[in-house]
Amino acid sequence: MKLVDIYFQLKADVNYIEQELERAIDTQLRDLYLSSTHLLKAGGKRIRPVFVLLGGKWGTYDLDRLKHIAVSLELIHMATLVHDDVVDDADKRRGRETVKAKWDNKVAMYTGDYILARALSTVTKLANPQIHQILSHAIVEMCKGEIEQVRDLHNWEQGFRTYLRRIKRKTALLIAISCQLGAVASEASADLVRRMFRYGYNVGMAFQITDDILDFTGTDKQLGKPAGSDLRQGNITLPALYSATKGANKERFQNWIAQGTLQEHMDEAIELIRRGEGIAVAQSLAARYIERARQELAGLPENQTKKSLLEIASFIGERKF
Amino acid sequence: MKLVDIYFQLKADVNYIEQELERAIDTQLRDLYLSSTHLLKAGGKRIRPVFVLLGGKWGTYDLDRLKHIAVSLELIHMATLVHDDVVDDADKRRGRETVKAKWDNKVAMYTGDYILARALSTVTKLANPQIHQILSHAIVEMCKGEIEQVRDLHNWEQGFRTYLRRIKRKTALLIAISCQLGAVASEASADLVRRMFRYGYNVGMAFQITDDILDFTGTDKQLGKPAGSDLRQGNITLPALYSATKGANKERFQNWIAQGTLQEHMDEAIELIRRGEGIAVAQSLAARYIERARQELAGLPENQTKKSLLEIASFIGERKF
Repeated sequence: MKLVDIYFQLKADVNYIEQELERAIDTQLRDLYLSSTHLLKAGGKRIRPVFVLLGGKWGTYDLDRLKHIAVSLELIHMATLVHDDVVDDADKRRGRETVKAKWDNKVAMYTGDYILARALSTVTKLANPQIHQILSHAIVEMCKGEIEQVRDLHNWEQGFRTYLRRIKRKTALLIAISCQLGAVASEASADLVRRMFRYGYNVGMAFQITDDILDFTGTDKQLGKPAGSDLRQGNITLPALYSATKGANKERFQNWIAQGTLQEHMDEAIELIRRGEGIAVAQSLAARYIERARQELAGLPENQTKKSLLEIASFIGERKF
Repeated sequence: MKLVDIYFQLKADVNYIEQELERAIDTQLRDLYLSSTHLLKAGGKRIRPVFVLLGGKWGTYDLDRLKHIAVSLELIHMATLVHDDVVDDADKRRGRETVKAKWDNKVAMYTGDYILARALSTVTKLANPQIHQILSHAIVEMCKGEIEQVRDLHNWEQGFRTYLRRIKRKTALLIAISCQLGAVASEASADLVRRMFRYGYNVGMAFQITDDILDFTGTDKQLGKPAGSDLRQGNITLPALYSATKGANKERFQNWIAQGTLQEHMDEAIELIRRGEGIAVAQSLAARYIERARQELAGLPENQTKKSLLEIASFIGERKF
């Protein structure tokens, strides 16, 4: 079973969510309409909605309930991307200009605020307080993750645990609650809700680690932005951290860092990381998270949903873009 | 009955809310702690929490429920101020440096996001879905109001209705729902909930119009920022709009606008507005909103709460700072 087949099976529902996404941020204010639909129209994997739908298969699958969660989570994700691009000073995202590049930082700030507000408004159509508590807690943690990312910029003293905690907050948690809230909204058992959360958490960790690997190993075209962007902006991810503190070339990195000349040697540094052991270390860690995600599903009935979740886990572990 | 007496009567509860505000945004992340408590420590009238408490007097007054709403609304207000200061490029607020001035725009963006996230998290402690719907709808409208403010900058073609709709979204609605949600949380009757909303809406409109007047008539010291700041930033409020389109000096304004030389004549323009008919027109409109607010209370039993709400309405109509 391939990822394309999973999307094919869910196609009608994913298309419906796509329409609902557009409806959710629609507005008569033209400028706001343009800036807030800009990122939406760039497309995307819509992996969070897919996880909500799959999470929802473990109980009473009700698209009319699930859509509110799927739309809300995808919008929250989009809102954070719009704000991230301000903080990262990024001009490209998914091969398109970012909101902050096409308009400016102020428009990007309000567009992100607006998209988030619409996300909140959408989810309030569900009455279950547990859903709101899980969601708002995750938003708090995501904000902390973003702040940690700013704090940890250019900080080579950070350990692997700092990196892992940051990507948990920044990425894994939203994916975890996508799976979890799908299960909650379909009134699946407490055990299944917990499994879905942990499956999503582990997949999410692997997803971000893989993203951080691809930032070094991908081509500019695959990435839709220049390779090595993270490091150029001072965002120190696992492959870089390993190369600079444990790898065969750590002396050279430590010299550049001590002398403050890393920026001048950036192309060389990126090449060293690309060819260094940090990539394999990160790959192996991602594989471990994928394995843990798969284990969460062990013991669950063999059905289409389980197959799909296993396939997505494998895909994320092996993805090349 | 004076404003100070109202606060005196509610003092214990307002102090409790103040502590809860600090608790709500507390975090182990030191930088985030400093930036997010920066505005909180500048103090403020806490008028939204006071309205929540007074709204809560019309049903079963339960501070343990009301505190979640009061904290959430004050935090939402603070989050918007932190983001507003980025958009307005403002260096001073309540006589103190703004977050964006003390740190930078990026920190201000995330600090605002974090404060908002904590606000959401706080209110999810209440299960009533109506509360979440009212709140999230208001946040969407506030975002629209902020975007309209950016869109309408330097636009002298806007009519009075555009101004009124903008301040409704930007200010009046949050005050309206402060009163309303206090009543909702205390399970007051539907009629009282509606009255509280409309009282708050009218008081909120008067509040913002008065704010816009004071921006011209106040001293730098009273305002904690330079007088005429709004117009200097291109934010066209009622006194300015009236002077430029209906007042005795409208020819001069129209010439400056047509020739694009308003900025050069800014001090003169501000002086003309300060002495012009726009101030009286705005004062009279504010008075009408105050009168409507008072009328919403007519027919309600004569009690302490009603007295307090009437007094606050009068205070807002007459405030000098």
